[in-house]
Amino acid sequence: MSANDKLRELGYELSKPSAPAANYIPVNRVGNLLYVSGQVSIDENGVITGTLGKDVDVSAGQKAAEWSAVSILSHIVHSAGIELDNIKKFVKLTILVASTTDFTEQHIVANGASDLLVNVLGDKGRHARAAFGVAALPLGAAVEIEAIVEV
Amino acid sequence: MSANDKLRELGYELSKPSAPAANYIPVNRVGNLLYVSGQVSIDENGVITGTLGKDVDVSAGQKAAEWSAVSILSHIVHSAGIELDNIKKFVKLTILVASTTDFTEQHIVANGASDLLVNVLGDKGRHARAAFGVAALPLGAAVEIEAIVEV
Amino acid sequence: MSANDKLRELGYELSKPSAPAANYIPVNRVGNLLYVSGQVSIDENGVITGTLGKDVDVSAGQKAAEWSAVSILSHIVHSAGIELDNIKKFVKLTILVASTTDFTEQHIVANGASDLLVNVLGDKGRHARAAFGVAALPLGAAVEIEAIVEV
Repeated sequence: MSANDKLRELGYELSKPSAPAANYIPVNRVGNLLYVSGQVSIDENGVITGTLGKDVDVSAGQKAAEWSAVSILSHIVHSAGIELDNIKKFVKLTILVASTTDFTEQHIVANGASDLLVNVLGDKGRHARAAFGVAALPLGAAVEIEAIVEV
Repeated sequence: MSANDKLRELGYELSKPSAPAANYIPVNRVGNLLYVSGQVSIDENGVITGTLGKDVDVSAGQKAAEWSAVSILSHIVHSAGIELDNIKKFVKLTILVASTTDFTEQHIVANGASDLLVNVLGDKGRHARAAFGVAALPLGAAVEIEAIVEV
Repeated sequence: MSANDKLRELGYELSKPSAPAANYIPVNRVGNLLYVSGQVSIDENGVITGTLGKDVDVSAGQKAAEWSAVSILSHIVHSAGIELDNIKKFVKLTILVASTTDFTEQHIVANGASDLLVNVLGDKGRHARAAFGVAALPLGAAVEIEAIVEV
């Protein structure tokens, strides 16, 4: 079963993401490493906004993290032109969670992204990571994730 | 026109930065990659302090981000001994913006740095990036930026 | 004097860390680089919790940062199977400090980790770094540190 099929089974299609509206690039390749720009949580209805500990619960935060991970995969395919099955491995995720000062389950929110990558890519989806709570994210997003990926 | 000339045209000189007052190094090279330590926003008058959403507006935040980018270039030249024209490309910026919890334009602030690098270095200045809002920065800085650069 | 002896002299033993309870890995190797997942501050009594500027002072924050650095060393030895004396050099630390919005000495807190690494590893412990204040950390930790290490 291909990574694309697994992703489809989870209910996701990799649609072509819009190009950045500023002087940066979504995926920058150096040697065999792809540096993927921070992807805020966006679903079919637009940016998933809010703050963990206030108006987004852990389960909704995990779903937001899942959508950020899907955006990362979309950019790998559509911006970098790398098929999912040609990913050698995910190296590192940085998972930023918009959080009140008393919300302390950023690691549980982060599992939304980590689980999706392992479900889709198997052991190649396993990664080092850091998750932490930030004051606020661009466009009011609940989650933003950046990645380093080996191809 | 050299990168230095373009920088001068924008009103910046790359003055020699002071050495870190602690056990870390401003630029650490591994193979062809330079890891540049986080540079807080500093202009000729000292640290540009404040918080976006409170006492620093977007335009002033962009200027602060520009100054952080200039510090990164200064360290590449003066700490790592690499001429600007010998930069192969900027790989990645992480742009930290001191933000209230309801400020959500960190990406617009970040453009101050992204635009400067592309203006000075052309396509070699284009980079992957993540921008997000943090509770507070060292010395009360408004912006801090770290970079990975290929030489 | 070996790195292990120096560490012991500072009062630390590298005990075997527990495996992550989620779909990520503590150390991910790519070529000669180790990406070490974010390590929250934990001592023998459990997570060192709190917020700088509120209920953790700078000195306690430095100790928390020291413990995060020790966890990084533990994972290099026990999860990646690399002896401390086989570290080529530390490349980069990202030091996240749970902070109130008016605490601005994250760089001083970070020195707890930077000093420990240089004390234990000498010049090989010198690194690029970024330190900043975050809204909150997993499990309420005061400090979290991630690392890139060349072996």
